[in-house]
Amino acid sequence: MNMESNKIVRIAVDAMGGDFAPEYPVLGAIDAAKENRNIEVILVGPEGKISPILEKNSVSLKNLKVVNADEFVTMEDVPAEVFKTKPGSSLNIALKMQRENEADALVSAGNTGAVLSHSTLRLGRIPGIGRATIGAQLPTITGSTMVFDVGATVDCRPNHLVEYAVMGSIYVNNIFNNKSPKVGLLSVGEEKVKGNTLTLAAYEMLEKAPINFIGNVEGGDILRGIADVVICDGFVGNILLKEAESVLDLLKAKLKGYAEMGFIKKLRVAMMYGTLKKILKNFDYQEQGGTPLLGVNGVSIIGHGKSTPYAVKKMIFRAEEISRFEINKKIELKLKEINLK
Amino acid sequence: MNMESNKIVRIAVDAMGGDFAPEYPVLGAIDAAKENRNIEVILVGPEGKISPILEKNSVSLKNLKVVNADEFVTMEDVPAEVFKTKPGSSLNIALKMQRENEADALVSAGNTGAVLSHSTLRLGRIPGIGRATIGAQLPTITGSTMVFDVGATVDCRPNHLVEYAVMGSIYVNNIFNNKSPKVGLLSVGEEKVKGNTLTLAAYEMLEKAPINFIGNVEGGDILRGIADVVICDGFVGNILLKEAESVLDLLKAKLKGYAEMGFIKKLRVAMMYGTLKKILKNFDYQEQGGTPLLGVNGVSIIGHGKSTPYAVKKMIFRAEEISRFEINKKIELKLKEINLK
Repeated sequence: MNMESNKIVRIAVDAMGGDFAPEYPVLGAIDAAKENRNIEVILVGPEGKISPILEKNSVSLKNLKVVNADEFVTMEDVPAEVFKTKPGSSLNIALKMQRENEADALVSAGNTGAVLSHSTLRLGRIPGIGRATIGAQLPTITGSTMVFDVGATVDCRPNHLVEYAVMGSIYVNNIFNNKSPKVGLLSVGEEKVKGNTLTLAAYEMLEKAPINFIGNVEGGDILRGIADVVICDGFVGNILLKEAESVLDLLKAKLKGYAEMGFIKKLRVAMMYGTLKKILKNFDYQEQGGTPLLGVNGVSIIGHGKSTPYAVKKMIFRAEEISRFEINKKIELKLKEINLK
Repeated sequence: MNMESNKIVRIAVDAMGGDFAPEYPVLGAIDAAKENRNIEVILVGPEGKISPILEKNSVSLKNLKVVNADEFVTMEDVPAEVFKTKPGSSLNIALKMQRENEADALVSAGNTGAVLSHSTLRLGRIPGIGRATIGAQLPTITGSTMVFDVGATVDCRPNHLVEYAVMGSIYVNNIFNNKSPKVGLLSVGEEKVKGNTLTLAAYEMLEKAPINFIGNVEGGDILRGIADVVICDGFVGNILLKEAESVLDLLKAKLKGYAEMGFIKKLRVAMMYGTLKKILKNFDYQEQGGTPLLGVNGVSIIGHGKSTPYAVKKMIFRAEEISRFEINKKIELKLKEINLK
C-alpha cells in the first residue's frame, strides 16, 4: 500500500450500529486496534455496555478508546427525524468528533439512511459537490466493479452523475491501485444515442470530464466487468444492487428444492454446496470493507446491518485508507478542473 | 386452457427474424403447425429461401402458408430508419397482413427495436393506451414474475406505469391463469414515501386502479417472487433484466476458473454442472414463448435473437393465446373503468 501520510488516523466506530451491536462492532474494533497499523480506534456508545465486552476479552490497548454516548439510532428510526429526536446518539456524537477534529473517520453498520443524513448534516459536502453518493462493490468475472450511486439520491441531475464519475474514479484509483479506472455510464444500449433524458445529457458532460470515460454500459455489462466504475442515479443503482444480492437467495432456494426431491439429489447438492461457496466467496460483503459515502467533507463508511467483527475490522481499515490517501482533497482539486453547475 | 374462442388464429411468422433465420423460424413454424391446435401459420419472407427448407423437411401442411417478402430487417438496421428504407421487409409485410385482417398475430425473433417501432406504427395503440410496453418473464423462488416495462419507453410518466399495471394484470391473469395477480411498484423501499418523483406519483394512482396493488417492491423482491407483476419504467426494467441474465454468465465463468485450478476441482465442477443446469432450467428464455409487446392494437411477440425452433414454436403458441383470450379487448374495457390523462 502506497501510504501517502504517516499520521495516526483516528477512527470513530459507532458501537451501537448494526443488528449485533454492541458486541460485533466492539469485537471488530478490538481486532482492528490489535493489528500493527498507525490507527487509533474510538468506540462511541454507552460505556456501561461497551466496557463489559472489553473486560470479558481482557482488552486494554493504548490505541483503543471509549467515548460515552447514551442514546442510539435503531434500524426503525426515521432518518429525517432521528437527527433531532436523538441528538445524543452514538452516531451523532461520533460525527461531532470528526467535525471538531477529534476523529478522522466514522464507521457504522447502523441505519443506512441515518448514517447518510447525519453525515451530510454534520460534515457538509466537499466544495464543488452537489450530492453525496454511496458506492457498492460488485463482483465481476474479472474482479470487481464499483457502482455509484446505490441510493443516496433517487432523482439526479446530469451534473450529479459527473460528480459520481469523478469521485468514483479517484476512489478506485487510490483504493484498488487502478491507474486509469474505466468509467461506464449505465444505460439501455452501447450507442451514445441510447438512454433516457438524464443519461443523454450526462453523456455529453462525461465526454469532457477528466476521467477515462468508456461510454455507455448495459445492465449485463456490470457483472461482466466491462467498467471499473459504473455510474447511475441512486434509484437504478439501489434496485440493481438489491437484485444482484438476491440472486444467491434464488440459487439457494432452487438447490434446496432440488435436494428435497430425493436422497440422491440431496447428496448431489450437499457435494456441490462447499464448492459453490468457495467459488462465490467474492460475493461476500464482509470482505469489502463496507460501502463508502463519498462527497461529504469527511470520511464515512456504511456497513451491512449484519456485519460481523471481521467485517467491522475491514471497514475500519477502509476508513483509514480513505483518510490516509486524502481522497477528499483529491476530489476537491479535480473538481476545480471542471466547471459543473 | 380455458379457450374463450374457437376461431382459427392466424399467426404471421417473420421468417427472417433472428440470428439463425430463416432456418430456425421456419423449423419452429413447421413444428407449431404440426401440433393439433386451431391455428394457421404464415411464414413471411423470401420464398426462394423458405421453400428449400420446407422441401428438405418434406413438409406440406394445410395450415402452413408462405407469403413472399423480398427484403428483411437486420440486427444492424436502425429501427427509426428501416421502416422507411425497407418497406418490403418480412416484418413490415407480416404486420400489414395483421392490419388488413389477413393475420391475427406477429411472431419475430428479429431486431427488437424494429419489431417495437414497426408494430406501433402499423398496428397503432389500444384506445386509452399512451405507451406500448415490452414484458419479460423472470424466474422466482416460487415460480415466475412478469416485469413491465423492459425497454419500450425509457422516460415514463406516472400514467404510463398505471397502464403497464393494468395490462400486466390482465396478461398474467389470462396467460398464467392467476385469478388476482399481485402488482408491485418497483422502488427503493417498501414504504409508500420511498421512491423517486415518478414512482411517488404513480403510487397514488395505482392505489385507485382496478388491480391487486401490493405497494412498493424492492430490487431484491423481484426474484423472491413477492409480486406476480412488477412495474417500472423501461430504463430501469431493461437494466435489471440484462443484469439478471448476466448472472449465469458470471457463475459459469467462476466455475470455469475454479475447474482450471486442478484435476480434483475440475472433477467437482463437472459433477455439479448437470445438476446446476437442471436446477436453473427455468432461467431458460426458450420456455417462455418470447416477450409480449402489450398496448399495440394487435398481437406482437418478440423473441430472443438466438431463438431455437423450439423457442419459435413456443412464441407461436403464446401469440395464439393472446389472440384467443382477447387480451386487447379486455385491456380496452378495463381502461374505460379508470380515467388516465
